[in-house]
Amino acid sequence: MAQLTLGELAVRFGLALRGDPDRRVGSVATLESAAGDQVAFLANPKLVDRLAACRAGAVVLKPPLAASSPVDCLLADNPHAAFARIAAVLHPPTAAPPGVHASAVVADDAVIDASAHVGPQCVVGARARIGARAVLGPGCLVGEDAVIAEDVRLVARVTVLERVEIGARSILHPGAVIGSEGFGYAPEGAAWVHVPQVGTVRIGADVEIGANTTVDRGALGDTVIGEGVKIDNLVQIGHNCSIGAHSALAGCVGLAGSSHVGARCRLGGGVGLAGHLTICDDVTLTGFTLVTGDIREPGVYSGGVPAEPAADWRRVVGRLKRLDALARRVSALERGEGADGGPDA
Amino acid sequence: MAQLTLGELAVRFGLALRGDPDRRVGSVATLESAAGDQVAFLANPKLVDRLAACRAGAVVLKPPLAASSPVDCLLADNPHAAFARIAAVLHPPTAAPPGVHASAVVADDAVIDASAHVGPQCVVGARARIGARAVLGPGCLVGEDAVIAEDVRLVARVTVLERVEIGARSILHPGAVIGSEGFGYAPEGAAWVHVPQVGTVRIGADVEIGANTTVDRGALGDTVIGEGVKIDNLVQIGHNCSIGAHSALAGCVGLAGSSHVGARCRLGGGVGLAGHLTICDDVTLTGFTLVTGDIREPGVYSGGVPAEPAADWRRVVGRLKRLDALARRVSALERGEGADGGPDA
Amino acid sequence: MAQLTLGELAVRFGLALRGDPDRRVGSVATLESAAGDQVAFLANPKLVDRLAACRAGAVVLKPPLAASSPVDCLLADNPHAAFARIAAVLHPPTAAPPGVHASAVVADDAVIDASAHVGPQCVVGARARIGARAVLGPGCLVGEDAVIAEDVRLVARVTVLERVEIGARSILHPGAVIGSEGFGYAPEGAAWVHVPQVGTVRIGADVEIGANTTVDRGALGDTVIGEGVKIDNLVQIGHNCSIGAHSALAGCVGLAGSSHVGARCRLGGGVGLAGHLTICDDVTLTGFTLVTGDIREPGVYSGGVPAEPAADWRRVVGRLKRLDALARRVSALERGEGADGGPDA
Repeated sequence: MAQLTLGELAVRFGLALRGDPDRRVGSVATLESAAGDQVAFLANPKLVDRLAACRAGAVVLKPPLAASSPVDCLLADNPHAAFARIAAVLHPPTAAPPGVHASAVVADDAVIDASAHVGPQCVVGARARIGARAVLGPGCLVGEDAVIAEDVRLVARVTVLERVEIGARSILHPGAVIGSEGFGYAPEGAAWVHVPQVGTVRIGADVEIGANTTVDRGALGDTVIGEGVKIDNLVQIGHNCSIGAHSALAGCVGLAGSSHVGARCRLGGGVGLAGHLTICDDVTLTGFTLVTGDIREPGVYSGGVPAEPAADWRRVVGRLKRLDALARRVSALERGEGADGGPDA
Repeated sequence: MAQLTLGELAVRFGLALRGDPDRRVGSVATLESAAGDQVAFLANPKLVDRLAACRAGAVVLKPPLAASSPVDCLLADNPHAAFARIAAVLHPPTAAPPGVHASAVVADDAVIDASAHVGPQCVVGARARIGARAVLGPGCLVGEDAVIAEDVRLVARVTVLERVEIGARSILHPGAVIGSEGFGYAPEGAAWVHVPQVGTVRIGADVEIGANTTVDRGALGDTVIGEGVKIDNLVQIGHNCSIGAHSALAGCVGLAGSSHVGARCRLGGGVGLAGHLTICDDVTLTGFTLVTGDIREPGVYSGGVPAEPAADWRRVVGRLKRLDALARRVSALERGEGADGGPDA
Repeated sequence: MAQLTLGELAVRFGLALRGDPDRRVGSVATLESAAGDQVAFLANPKLVDRLAACRAGAVVLKPPLAASSPVDCLLADNPHAAFARIAAVLHPPTAAPPGVHASAVVADDAVIDASAHVGPQCVVGARARIGARAVLGPGCLVGEDAVIAEDVRLVARVTVLERVEIGARSILHPGAVIGSEGFGYAPEGAAWVHVPQVGTVRIGADVEIGANTTVDRGALGDTVIGEGVKIDNLVQIGHNCSIGAHSALAGCVGLAGSSHVGARCRLGGGVGLAGHLTICDDVTLTGFTLVTGDIREPGVYSGGVPAEPAADWRRVVGRLKRLDALARRVSALERGEGADGGPDA
């Protein structure tokens, strides 16, 4: 574990320090649990009362809160982001020395940068290129002609299929599959004819892709994931989708083929996009929302219904399914016709 | 990349050719982007206007549209299916030479056809049989007594567990797990006793199974996937399910145990089946639909609610949860009793 | 396959036997299909009529039903649980001899119990500990400092990342990923800063985790899965979640970060929890239910709407989206104001 002084952290991240520049810290922890050699943070000013009991070596917080801190402070306008960077230096990923592990199988004409790490049981296909300082953890697979840019981290058991391109500094978590053939079939009578998927996947810089997430290659054109996009676990991205820069997709989201998501969008867990549609920039979809058509205005959209006690919900569903009849009964009342739906009451 | 003449393609697929039989093409592309050595297609007659700008080497289309094409044509009653077959010969999968890679671990009594390919880091268990021209891409696992028929392609990192049978020409995408033990437990007091799952999975010919999809083995009987079934990514098929021939299941579908889906059904993305139910042949379920009971009539069924602006949706949900009260208020009005629900208005 | 006598089974599991203690049985089957060397069971007294045609070597059932059985009986108060234990001895998992396969890559300072099995293509990191009789099937990955307790079974291709702890007798199915970094980002302008996830995952004894399920490590604290919890395939457990003992989560469930599920809960397929919420003990959520806030009372909760014919459903959805207007029309009628919503009828 790294050990740094508060002074070193302040200089490195351009933060003002209130306290002892020589104090050494080695890890991060929560505000409640941090000990004297740990760094905590407070982002939400409403929680300032929690500072009183803090015993951290230092706490990262906004300048106006410094006076409330009983311990040393690192001052940041964005305490969470500053804390994230401090955590990254105090908790670096497992060391991955340059070189190719003896158990890896690497094609003769693959181009592996000398500073890259190719771990045990990896397979790297013909003409694939692995950039500087890239890390292929154990059991990763990189297909023919794939391009892994510098500083990419394939954590473990990641599958990057042929011709896929992964941008610099991106992180792919275990079990992710990038460049699988999408769900493309031509109907012929009762059967389906497989349509070869000849596009690829292009992933920008600073993208993160979660565990067991799947991103299909394009059918003819490409599937494109923009710079800085963050995708959680168990997400399905269909062929020829595009996702704009800095959008974030939570777990269990599914995008059918040719869905286009703008920049800076946020998709909550379990959201589904029906395919062949476009969502403009700056759209938030709350969890469990189904989208079946274009969204052209930025804003927040929803479609999920929160849980009810089952007995109540069964009654609601019963009523819901007769909602058309109910509306017609209201119209009849409005026309002064009296009851026509008695049995529903 | 393969290079063929239009004449060769016409003969091979039984298509009429309008144009130069000696023109060489090497790949496929979209109608808009195809160059002179590429093949495109037009399936939708409504898009015939797009032909004017086409610069492809040839376009596959229906005979009546040939007159509108500025470039050579291959005529097909089903242009998409014909295009799919042309794409398959122009874009064959990565070559997979016969033989077992030195890094693969193969049981002594496994039976590997001499024409099959067993790639790097594969593991093949005792008594497993791998058929003619079958391809096990890198990192695949085939369990004891499993049977992989001829021309099957396990793309990469596919897990086929013991005794599972995969039919001819089927394609399984990376991360798919076939034959895992299903969710079978006997309740005992507050706890659960694991019920060994002693059935298996039988997958028919010409099936396709998507990336990171899971198919559980049967508890006592078998889980059965019919001929020609196509299953997308991240789909869960519970123990003892059956799926009839030529059905198609889109991404993120979940079938609880003992769900039975008929032939030629189409399940949209995110559809859920509650288990121990039967869906007849020729049923379409649109995306996000939940099925909790048998469906006995062919047709289209739905259950998803498309997104609304969040503020509007919150109001709808509030009203929805009081729908039973609203219906009772309407009944009261019908009985001439006037308002009884003022606070809800 | 094991072969045991009914007498041996009766003694081993403390069951009364009606019949021949020397009859040999070797496998289990359904009541309908079991032959004379097989064991079946009947748990539901309502199905007692099915006994008449039973040809099993023995059937496990409740004592009062013994008189109705035409074949030998093993009597159990909980026939399903007794049957499960009988099935486990007659159908043991594939043998896994002690030792480390030659193709596995094991760190010098990993501690592997002499009775443990480390299969082909496994990777075990520095200082990891593998307990007595634990089985790592082919292609499993155990990260640095991870702890696999005694009798754990990692079926195949399971990923257990650094520092994760797996309790005794737990079973993890293929493709499961335990300890991936969760979806933790600090917003900074339009972009996201990766927040290192420095907690881990602690999994209790007798837990089962399904194929391709993902469990993220905690951000600062830990993600905790209690004793006896059963999790199905393709489930996502976010960072810092906790799940109480003996809860069961069906396929395709998603828990956003910091969701806390009590003990003995049952979550149906496709259920979603919105994160930062608490569900008390003994709650059942039926399939497709979305939970967005705390649940403080035990009971059954729902939120899914079963499928309708699409034409009917479209009408319902149309009405639903105008439900606020409908309610206002009812209020107007209650106030004696007559029709204000004619166009909706």
